[in-house]
Amino acid sequence: MSDIVRFGVSLSRKLLENFDRNITRKGYTSRSEALRDLIREHLVDFEWKEGKKETVGTITLVYNHKTRELGEKLTHIQHQYVNLIISSTHIHLDKHNCLEVLILKGAGKKITAIADKLISTKGVKHGKLTMTTTGKELA
Amino acid sequence: MSDIVRFGVSLSRKLLENFDRNITRKGYTSRSEALRDLIREHLVDFEWKEGKKETVGTITLVYNHKTRELGEKLTHIQHQYVNLIISSTHIHLDKHNCLEVLILKGAGKKITAIADKLISTKGVKHGKLTMTTTGKELA
Amino acid sequence: MSDIVRFGVSLSRKLLENFDRNITRKGYTSRSEALRDLIREHLVDFEWKEGKKETVGTITLVYNHKTRELGEKLTHIQHQYVNLIISSTHIHLDKHNCLEVLILKGAGKKITAIADKLISTKGVKHGKLTMTTTGKELA
Amino acid sequence: MSDIVRFGVSLSRKLLENFDRNITRKGYTSRSEALRDLIREHLVDFEWKEGKKETVGTITLVYNHKTRELGEKLTHIQHQYVNLIISSTHIHLDKHNCLEVLILKGAGKKITAIADKLISTKGVKHGKLTMTTTGKELA
Repeated sequence: MSDIVRFGVSLSRKLLENFDRNITRKGYTSRSEALRDLIREHLVDFEWKEGKKETVGTITLVYNHKTRELGEKLTHIQHQYVNLIISSTHIHLDKHNCLEVLILKGAGKKITAIADKLISTKGVKHGKLTMTTTGKELA
Repeated sequence: MSDIVRFGVSLSRKLLENFDRNITRKGYTSRSEALRDLIREHLVDFEWKEGKKETVGTITLVYNHKTRELGEKLTHIQHQYVNLIISSTHIHLDKHNCLEVLILKGAGKKITAIADKLISTKGVKHGKLTMTTTGKELA
Repeated sequence: MSDIVRFGVSLSRKLLENFDRNITRKGYTSRSEALRDLIREHLVDFEWKEGKKETVGTITLVYNHKTRELGEKLTHIQHQYVNLIISSTHIHLDKHNCLEVLILKGAGKKITAIADKLISTKGVKHGKLTMTTTGKELA
Repeated sequence: MSDIVRFGVSLSRKLLENFDRNITRKGYTSRSEALRDLIREHLVDFEWKEGKKETVGTITLVYNHKTRELGEKLTHIQHQYVNLIISSTHIHLDKHNCLEVLILKGAGKKITAIADKLISTKGVKHGKLTMTTTGKELA
């Protein structure tokens, strides 16, 4: 396909041998694929630092569903951003603990602001924002 | 409830003022809650470093669903670990790009190994492991 | 001293026990000190994200001193920022490899820009920016 | 030189263009150099996770030199590890605050343990361990 380009990289034999050994352990069968992954990770970091581009993130929340009004509060916050939240998965981890994983698409800055709001809500035991990508720029 | 304990923290006024200003911006309405979040984050990091305890993680994969046999490969890997994977959510980001978010429960080391396998698969554009928790130890 | 304030934190006994066990392993003899460290780390992160405040950082460079003109290039870049660079320590790691550790004071954004320039210089094997603080706000 | 090898990487034009734009902003003049830096960073992370190999790190400490006995305590800890600590640089940041930057060589695990001890000492305002390398494996 015309969309694929090829270029050469030169480096010391030792560096290459170490890299090859390392990625094999991680399960890579192709050195090019491992390098593309390093490049993509680099680009995703950058995309999020810029803050304005449309990107994709997940917000992971662990909480006790018995905490008074917590579920309502979290739902209330989410409803203010329905245009950004694509989906929400709820897992009953045990009798008390729930995991909620939201998937969001929008400007990095906005997703970060929603994550801050949800994670800072009293009763949320653990919250994390995971920065991934729409995949468009990584074609 | 008898399960709640209280203790005092002493620190300089300046440090406290800076902390309060900062967490207010993040949306916290309670200083105790912000401190508990710092404590929990610390514990979750530690739990994952140990590697053996049961914990919870998500694996986020972005890929082009048209890449030959990629979907099959990813499904094949996942089927080897059905006892660890709780759920999988699939989002069609656009005509080409898919997002798959897996939720897993098990030893941190095992979840990390599955993440390595999936993320290193050729054609996966971006993959990330997010380390969260069962919530049990953060009661 | 009047500058020290004290406040109470309430949390579940289990969370506190886990935290205490964890910080003891790390060598803390005081729970307050461990909490203050979490607070300070949080504030330093924030200070650097803002970018404009005066702060302190180190830049760590590992390179082969025999690489042609590399030393000159690195010195040349450093001389453009003499007002920001406080000190530079040079260690001969072995016959070929050198470690240079620069200590800088200034706006976070500027220190980051200098780090980018130095680390991207051809021949630098490994470079890292470490974000620390003037200590003023952490009084 | 016979020690240099060359290999080809294939990737989509779009991914390459994004990468080139990004690294140019960071100051890279050579794409190969940017890729080598990604590879090296990957290897240094791995070296530290393994814990046993000889590696190099810095420990950055900010503290108020007027805090009673703090200087003595930090010196005392350091003296137990003289064979690991290569050098120590002390900067007077202002009337009260000091920055101390230690450079260490040894097993990653040991350097981490020393960092834990120093950073957890009461009165240290901010402490960080920076993981770099002997450079040997990155030849």
